[in-house]
Amino acid sequence: MTQITSPHNHKLKEIRKLRMRRRARERAGRFVAEGEDLLAAADAAGWQPLERFCVEGSGLAGLEVDAKLLASASGLGSGTRTLAVYEERWAERAAGPLCVYLHGVHDPGNVGAVMRAAAAFGASSVALGPASADPFSPKAVRASMGAVFSVPVVREGDLRALPGTKIALTTVATAPLAGLWRFTKEADHPPVTLVVGSEREGLPREVVDRADGAVRIPIQTDSLNAAMAATIALYEVTRMAPAR
Amino acid sequence: MTQITSPHNHKLKEIRKLRMRRRARERAGRFVAEGEDLLAAADAAGWQPLERFCVEGSGLAGLEVDAKLLASASGLGSGTRTLAVYEERWAERAAGPLCVYLHGVHDPGNVGAVMRAAAAFGASSVALGPASADPFSPKAVRASMGAVFSVPVVREGDLRALPGTKIALTTVATAPLAGLWRFTKEADHPPVTLVVGSEREGLPREVVDRADGAVRIPIQTDSLNAAMAATIALYEVTRMAPAR
Repeated sequence: MTQITSPHNHKLKEIRKLRMRRRARERAGRFVAEGEDLLAAADAAGWQPLERFCVEGSGLAGLEVDAKLLASASGLGSGTRTLAVYEERWAERAAGPLCVYLHGVHDPGNVGAVMRAAAAFGASSVALGPASADPFSPKAVRASMGAVFSVPVVREGDLRALPGTKIALTTVATAPLAGLWRFTKEADHPPVTLVVGSEREGLPREVVDRADGAVRIPIQTDSLNAAMAATIALYEVTRMAPAR
Repeated sequence: MTQITSPHNHKLKEIRKLRMRRRARERAGRFVAEGEDLLAAADAAGWQPLERFCVEGSGLAGLEVDAKLLASASGLGSGTRTLAVYEERWAERAAGPLCVYLHGVHDPGNVGAVMRAAAAFGASSVALGPASADPFSPKAVRASMGAVFSVPVVREGDLRALPGTKIALTTVATAPLAGLWRFTKEADHPPVTLVVGSEREGLPREVVDRADGAVRIPIQTDSLNAAMAATIALYEVTRMAPAR
């Protein structure tokens, strides 16, 4: 039985707001995930949705919604079969032994991709510094491929509060310089925090200065994006210690 | 002086077609790049546009177009300042010593990101096998960050035609198994082709079988995307030979 048929339904309105506006998410402390894969990832990680919706006649779990209405509330449009609202979870502090800290990474797709890489390589947490995108935005949640439900995220403005040795990755490489050797040596002594800046601006001077070390990924072009840089660094530190 | 003011202008119509339809690009052998950064990358790589357009009054090079019309022809919408049409360039064969071969990578954003990583790590070519996305599609061109103008691309259905030792990367890792050690040893003897499949399906059995070796990237989740897998592999093979 279709349970939601009105475009003015307040639950659908809330979904639209949570999807579109960071402030609405922050105020409510809630976010939306869409699609069967993401909802399955949430289930697998033990997250209970506050409310779950599905398209009429799909046989999926949740409140049945008229297909057009569900599509209009969704960021994916027609073809949306299910979505759910969750409570945001922010960790109290950035956990070690392996943390990724993002400074000024504005692009939510990049933040999501970093979370995905963090999950893939078994990082303990992702810390979000000033001017970083919201990890609970729809684009970040989608790009995370469900990692938002498994990797603890924390807001942290203070580099000193992050675990262990802080290693700044400069994504803008001016020369193909293999500084990663030193880096892996330091990373042999966890905890380690990988400090990653945005693609355009890189890390501000003062952040690099406050880190314990800085390395360049040896590339021949101007830059990698934050997610690629983080992926390589996560690979490099875990490569040496696969059992971490 | 604004030189294009009609929405029916045939040049703008061609741009729209080239942007939206793969078949139109293939028939014309042309594609569109948008934005000052991409056009600068093309200039730097010595690519002459067939035609260049800019928004009226911008002082940029090219035919001046009414702002709304340029926005309507563009995939970026309002704010578009410049775009240009180029002739596609397909290499005759996949060059070594370091080639990346994509098999069934449908997503143009992923194909573009692989090209970007290939440029960053100095790969010689990117080969596109069956069912791979068009590297000249707008999404791929944008994700390549200009690498489409510097890395030779080739269509290649036959694994045997690719250079050197073929190493299949399985992006779907069932266990955190560090097969990359053997891989780097093999990669010490270029030429090498890195064989990458799609995120969902991975590489078909017969492609893995026809490769000279197969490795798993040691991850703890189900999968990485093709671009991340290729980035790690490119980093791993060039790490050992930074002067390649």
